[in-house]
Amino acid sequence: MKRDNIGIGILGLGTIAGQVARVLGDKSEILAAQAGCPLVLRKVKVLPQDLNRPQVDEMGRHLFTTDDEEFFSEPGIDIVVEAIGGEHPALEYLERALAGGKHVVTSNKEVIAKHGTELFDLAERKGVELRCEASVGGGIPLISRFRYDLVANRIKGIYAIINGTTNYILTRMAREDADFSSVLAEAQQLGYAEANPENDVEGIDAAYKLAILASLAFHTHIRPENIYCEGISRLSSRDFRYAREFGFAIKLLAIAKENGGGIEVRVHPAFIPEGSLLASVDGVYNAVLVVGDLVDKVLFFGQGAGPLPTSSAVVADIVSSAREIMAGIGRGAGIDFSSGIAVKPMTDIETRYYLRLNIDDRPGVLAQIASVLGERDISISSAIQKVADKAAHTAEIVVITHPARESAMQAALDNLVSLSGLREVSNFIRVEILS
Amino acid sequence: MKRDNIGIGILGLGTIAGQVARVLGDKSEILAAQAGCPLVLRKVKVLPQDLNRPQVDEMGRHLFTTDDEEFFSEPGIDIVVEAIGGEHPALEYLERALAGGKHVVTSNKEVIAKHGTELFDLAERKGVELRCEASVGGGIPLISRFRYDLVANRIKGIYAIINGTTNYILTRMAREDADFSSVLAEAQQLGYAEANPENDVEGIDAAYKLAILASLAFHTHIRPENIYCEGISRLSSRDFRYAREFGFAIKLLAIAKENGGGIEVRVHPAFIPEGSLLASVDGVYNAVLVVGDLVDKVLFFGQGAGPLPTSSAVVADIVSSAREIMAGIGRGAGIDFSSGIAVKPMTDIETRYYLRLNIDDRPGVLAQIASVLGERDISISSAIQKVADKAAHTAEIVVITHPARESAMQAALDNLVSLSGLREVSNFIRVEILS
Repeated sequence: MKRDNIGIGILGLGTIAGQVARVLGDKSEILAAQAGCPLVLRKVKVLPQDLNRPQVDEMGRHLFTTDDEEFFSEPGIDIVVEAIGGEHPALEYLERALAGGKHVVTSNKEVIAKHGTELFDLAERKGVELRCEASVGGGIPLISRFRYDLVANRIKGIYAIINGTTNYILTRMAREDADFSSVLAEAQQLGYAEANPENDVEGIDAAYKLAILASLAFHTHIRPENIYCEGISRLSSRDFRYAREFGFAIKLLAIAKENGGGIEVRVHPAFIPEGSLLASVDGVYNAVLVVGDLVDKVLFFGQGAGPLPTSSAVVADIVSSAREIMAGIGRGAGIDFSSGIAVKPMTDIETRYYLRLNIDDRPGVLAQIASVLGERDISISSAIQKVADKAAHTAEIVVITHPARESAMQAALDNLVSLSGLREVSNFIRVEILS
Repeated sequence: MKRDNIGIGILGLGTIAGQVARVLGDKSEILAAQAGCPLVLRKVKVLPQDLNRPQVDEMGRHLFTTDDEEFFSEPGIDIVVEAIGGEHPALEYLERALAGGKHVVTSNKEVIAKHGTELFDLAERKGVELRCEASVGGGIPLISRFRYDLVANRIKGIYAIINGTTNYILTRMAREDADFSSVLAEAQQLGYAEANPENDVEGIDAAYKLAILASLAFHTHIRPENIYCEGISRLSSRDFRYAREFGFAIKLLAIAKENGGGIEVRVHPAFIPEGSLLASVDGVYNAVLVVGDLVDKVLFFGQGAGPLPTSSAVVADIVSSAREIMAGIGRGAGIDFSSGIAVKPMTDIETRYYLRLNIDDRPGVLAQIASVLGERDISISSAIQKVADKAAHTAEIVVITHPARESAMQAALDNLVSLSGLREVSNFIRVEILS
């Protein structure tokens, strides 16, 4: 069973793949010591245009191919690393690698979120391992926590800041009293947001990552389309000002929590207590708070993206797979997705709410609002009223409620809209106490 | 190779061991699913007085023995769990278990800090695994980060709050403007500090844990006696007030950092920037900040002690060992302690310093102090002077320096003492910028 070396094949030569190749080269000695034998890069599958990159000549042109057949028929590859991203053709590549009995390491959140169960199942049938530590949280060790370290815990909840772009935007909005669109434009100029920012700002990227974490934590397959998803574009500087006044920060939270036999899984902006650790996670950083019955709260923090941190996770996965190959075992612990625990409909979640309402500045409107909420069993925790526009005789009322059901809150919102004194529901944000 | 079950033996029935036994019982089904077969508790070795505990009857008296021979000759034990703490007889028990070819899981920081290399070496020779996740940071997954997840990183530094008792005391001193002795007395009444608090407040417990983390991170064996160790008893409420004024918090930090071919390893109170994540780690919580060349900063936070969190780590280690036994391999990745990197003498460290000096309230004294520091190439970053006692004509000068060598600072302190205008060096605390 003793091997002379472990062969690596890489799909892609983008920023992640390029950095992984660099680490394998630069740190070959220490990695060999950790893996138990040298890790040898055997082939890199690239697109024709990638062949112009300087790294191709640096690494040696013979290592590169643009041909799928050549890559997948290379006999010396034990571990296939996929870092091209996106659903297709990454999915087909992963299936082909696993079906061919290769161990697979991927940083692709979309494909794991959408097809994780099937791919893990295929890996199990083929007696190989599929690892995806880099798919969530960049260099922050997360995935393996659920497979190993927290295995004795019943997970009660996950509260995560797992999209650096939106956290950067929210941090700047909070600090500079600036509006979403201007901060987004600057973030795009600085390269922190993409030209088409939809995946990040609408919470889709965070939902992919949450699908992966929640599936592992709750032993079930949570599909991204079952995750309620609301982005940050509706937030205004006024919301940040009121948040501060009430003692909260605003973050785009990815939440998965147990609630009476089902789980809530949702991505949306949330008020969180100013003094909480998550509230102090600023800029492009990520953090994941996990609540378990034994550990209570544990939090993992770090850079959630970028080629260097991500390569740290990819290479760690490569080393883990290499060790298993060296030890003569096909794969580590299987993943159990059989709990059958179901995702609760969004209408059944329970949380607190912040409402910002534009009203006629005349007596009795707050009483009307309180009464509408009261009819739905929603009680007010605190409220403030400010004159919004003296000339127009309008005021702004901000309400924070006690915990209520989403369905009750949505029904109350429908009723509020028909109140004669209410001009507009300016915003509506969920409030999470994180416990 | 397929096994019907894995047998567990536990040494001890204190709070940790008792909780581990409870988890093995209460969660037997989910643990069996994770391990691949049932985990069966075969024997618990206790002291005669432990036999009076209610848990003995709850679990069944036949499981307990007070006899070493009976415990170690029990044939059905695959994994020995040691949770008695202290150096002896824990060391002899661990050696005996490993020598007998048992996998070992321990939560004992003292014995791993003092004898880790030898014990890991013995485990390797016997083809079994020694796991000690619970020895540092309670339920926070830490140890395995260095053995697996961060394996591609050159570790540049570890900055850790790893003693809950001292962090609780410092948090209360900071919040209440209270003095050390009164807060310690209250902490003792509340059970957060022991009757003999020396191990905690003098930094010895933190040094044991740092020895373990630093040995793994820097691939060398760092003995606790080579760690500079200074406790928190000299801190006064004045120091907290000045810290706030300069924008710092005070924490008992355990530091291991690379510095020009050697490593600094030290435990002492430190000023850290108020806005840093470590500064917001309050109460009995622990946090470990790791800086690596690829991941940059990652931070792990949670409850560093207590039976529930600690049992989470112990049981996770048991499951990992059980999986390896089921997979037919003796042990996971070996640990490399061969880097040969040496601990720097404390005189060679470089950091910034806070000095609180009681002086005669007359012109020229600050100039004298600056000149003494300047002679040693220590430059002042900021300084404030306040009248301390008008009647006695004394003032207090507080100085924060730029980075300087410890040897230069110690020499400067010797010279300061002989200044005619200086009445007392009231305190001297290192300042860490955490980057």
